[in-house]
Amino acid sequence: MAEALRHDKPARQLRLLSDALDSGRLGPVRRLVHSLSPAEIGNLLESLPPNKRSVVWGLVDPEDDGEVLVHVGDEVRESLIADMDQDELIAAVEDLDIDDLADLAEDLPDTVIDEVLKSMDRENRERLEQVLSYEEDTAGRLMNPDVVTVRTDTTVDVVLRYLRLRGELPDHTDHIYVVSRRHQYLGRISLQSLLTHESSTPINELIDDEQPAITVEETAEEVARQFSDHDWISAPVVDDGNILLGRITIDDVVDIIRDQAQHQALSAAGLDDEEDLFSPVRRAFRRRLVWLGVNLGTAFLAASVVDRFQGTIEKIVALAVLMPIVAGMGGNAGTQVLALMVRGLALGQIGATNIPVLVWKELRIAWIIGLALGASLGLIVLLWFHDWRLSLVIGSALTINLTFAALGGVFVPVTLKRFGFDPALSGGVILTTITDVMGFLTFLGLATLLLL
Amino acid sequence: MAEALRHDKPARQLRLLSDALDSGRLGPVRRLVHSLSPAEIGNLLESLPPNKRSVVWGLVDPEDDGEVLVHVGDEVRESLIADMDQDELIAAVEDLDIDDLADLAEDLPDTVIDEVLKSMDRENRERLEQVLSYEEDTAGRLMNPDVVTVRTDTTVDVVLRYLRLRGELPDHTDHIYVVSRRHQYLGRISLQSLLTHESSTPINELIDDEQPAITVEETAEEVARQFSDHDWISAPVVDDGNILLGRITIDDVVDIIRDQAQHQALSAAGLDDEEDLFSPVRRAFRRRLVWLGVNLGTAFLAASVVDRFQGTIEKIVALAVLMPIVAGMGGNAGTQVLALMVRGLALGQIGATNIPVLVWKELRIAWIIGLALGASLGLIVLLWFHDWRLSLVIGSALTINLTFAALGGVFVPVTLKRFGFDPALSGGVILTTITDVMGFLTFLGLATLLLL
Repeated sequence: MAEALRHDKPARQLRLLSDALDSGRLGPVRRLVHSLSPAEIGNLLESLPPNKRSVVWGLVDPEDDGEVLVHVGDEVRESLIADMDQDELIAAVEDLDIDDLADLAEDLPDTVIDEVLKSMDRENRERLEQVLSYEEDTAGRLMNPDVVTVRTDTTVDVVLRYLRLRGELPDHTDHIYVVSRRHQYLGRISLQSLLTHESSTPINELIDDEQPAITVEETAEEVARQFSDHDWISAPVVDDGNILLGRITIDDVVDIIRDQAQHQALSAAGLDDEEDLFSPVRRAFRRRLVWLGVNLGTAFLAASVVDRFQGTIEKIVALAVLMPIVAGMGGNAGTQVLALMVRGLALGQIGATNIPVLVWKELRIAWIIGLALGASLGLIVLLWFHDWRLSLVIGSALTINLTFAALGGVFVPVTLKRFGFDPALSGGVILTTITDVMGFLTFLGLATLLLL
Repeated sequence: MAEALRHDKPARQLRLLSDALDSGRLGPVRRLVHSLSPAEIGNLLESLPPNKRSVVWGLVDPEDDGEVLVHVGDEVRESLIADMDQDELIAAVEDLDIDDLADLAEDLPDTVIDEVLKSMDRENRERLEQVLSYEEDTAGRLMNPDVVTVRTDTTVDVVLRYLRLRGELPDHTDHIYVVSRRHQYLGRISLQSLLTHESSTPINELIDDEQPAITVEETAEEVARQFSDHDWISAPVVDDGNILLGRITIDDVVDIIRDQAQHQALSAAGLDDEEDLFSPVRRAFRRRLVWLGVNLGTAFLAASVVDRFQGTIEKIVALAVLMPIVAGMGGNAGTQVLALMVRGLALGQIGATNIPVLVWKELRIAWIIGLALGASLGLIVLLWFHDWRLSLVIGSALTINLTFAALGGVFVPVTLKRFGFDPALSGGVILTTITDVMGFLTFLGLATLLLL
């Protein structure tokens, strides 16, 4: 634990910063903030309540403002933008890379966008407009049009001279791209091979044309998968006619992967992954109310099942004591299957061909667990209520509900995905509704049949 | 949806492969497998049931075997290794990079490790032994000792000649490192600046000495955070004396981030992130039983609360119908708070200084939601059971339970983290135990006081 704490750098920064803010000394705050990277500043701002956030935001070096805005979640970004006047905003964003600017565009006032477009040269303006013409979460929106290209009929020496003339290369340039006269993508050449080959080597001996290019409409998810499958640092983006449009770099991909991870964890609780830890109470209330309202509806559905068995419960009150156990255990078991399935679906590992095998595996696990836990549960109930028939009923009801949990755990996410819904978002609610309803129904139903 | 499916390349590969396997034609299977990267083959093997997995594994190009083993989860890896004899294993792993070999080492039989060590030259053997001497999930274990270093008293020209002489550079080399005579880390030089500066430029004009090096004992999590904060492609690893030991590259970091994501999603359901989708029933049973057993224990705790109120329920059976609603809604609301807190803790955004603000925010949200949902719930109950006192009881009980949910949602994960436990793993069980117990207690308790 001491180990874990020692390395917890963001938490330490937060502590230092809060102490300094509380004491009212802004000098140390400014020095701390200036020593951090934009991503670190973003993380720190996200961890501050609104009043302190405003103070610290005012102390950030204006040069870093744009990069910081790129690195925070949508909700926090809105709160930061609200703190800036138009001139500050324009100054903050106008020097950003095209892909970062495109990323921010939706959150900026139209007047700011117009000003920024006006301040750009024609080439960059057209590039930005092109990037913005693609849908969010596609390769087109993620790409940076600033690429280094060479033609095939040249030598290492000529390319090296061209690079020296060009000066600085775009961030994360590990390859330069070879294009045809019509700007079609032909292949890539690594900086490494330029450095390690004799200057007289013809370029076409160094071309790697085996790596496929990314098509401009591909989804961000698909882009991330390819980067991680091929260990890419950067990849070219082409249109349907194989014309080179730009490149995507690993830093954006890392952000996609992080976002996906947070999305899965938060959407299972009905939350947005852009949610601000300190979002205003009214806003958080509205968002959570929707989710809890849906859950209230499903809870009534389960309650209406119990309602049918009032007569039975009146005669055997022990049923009321025990019924949440059967329903709850079904929910827990089903959630395990669901979690495995959601991961498998996200990785593209589940299809029509292996679902039968998965169902059969999960059913067998459910029945063995039903035997083991059903027997333990029955035994405890026997010792508690001294009624072997009640034991039999609860053990059987548990096993039946675990069966529904296994089936629901497999088929609910598969069906949601099949119809274009996000299994991580609504899978849990639907599944626990099934296990609650079936848990109450089988337990109270069996009790009515066998115990009255 | 059609869009989503079209881009679902792994699912399409799985379908093609399964069709070919089912028809018994191994030629197409072999061709498909040979066209994939090791990571893609790994993903495909993970999506196959054991019998088909063995067949496909036998068709993988032996040259790719080692890389594929690196790219699959622990459980699947075990099943693949079990299919190989000792000579195949040695051939598969002996050409791997040192960091990959270290990653596999724990899953390989000792005899295989011994053979591989014997086949290495002395330098590589010592390097592997050094990497293995660091704990798992630390920078030392992730690093590759193969680095390109230069000294400070030289020029671009000399370095370029040295690189040409050296030939191929290690994968993902975007910087070379500058070291002192005693091999202390002094800074880094980007390949870009070597390419874009005149050959007579002295090396010390190009050194970037502002980026900190990673210390060998840092955790994998901390390494990943720094890479994403600084947009690194690679970073040097040093010991306490600043001696350069190796480097870590972004591809390993992407794997860490992916693993963290899966860990959070699966551990909330009590599962291991290395779990094989098709793990043998007996094995899956044992693992899940532990988790469900814990949940059964907590369910009994909640049931024992209900048990105290048997007399009350006997008189007003409607309580049995409604009590799961109060308990369940508390669980749902608490889970939302928990999800936000787990994310905040993982990002280091939560500390002693902002917890009071968070608690106050969550309490206010809980009370507003309590008012809104409590009133709706009360109204529905009034229409259903025609008893305004029952409405009052359920509305108040809900609000009280939401209060406990808010407090539990904040303090359970913070306390778990404080004592070195993983909040994502056990937070949910503890929280829902609190909301179940408090839900039953407040609802049935208030009913006993006010309705009897």
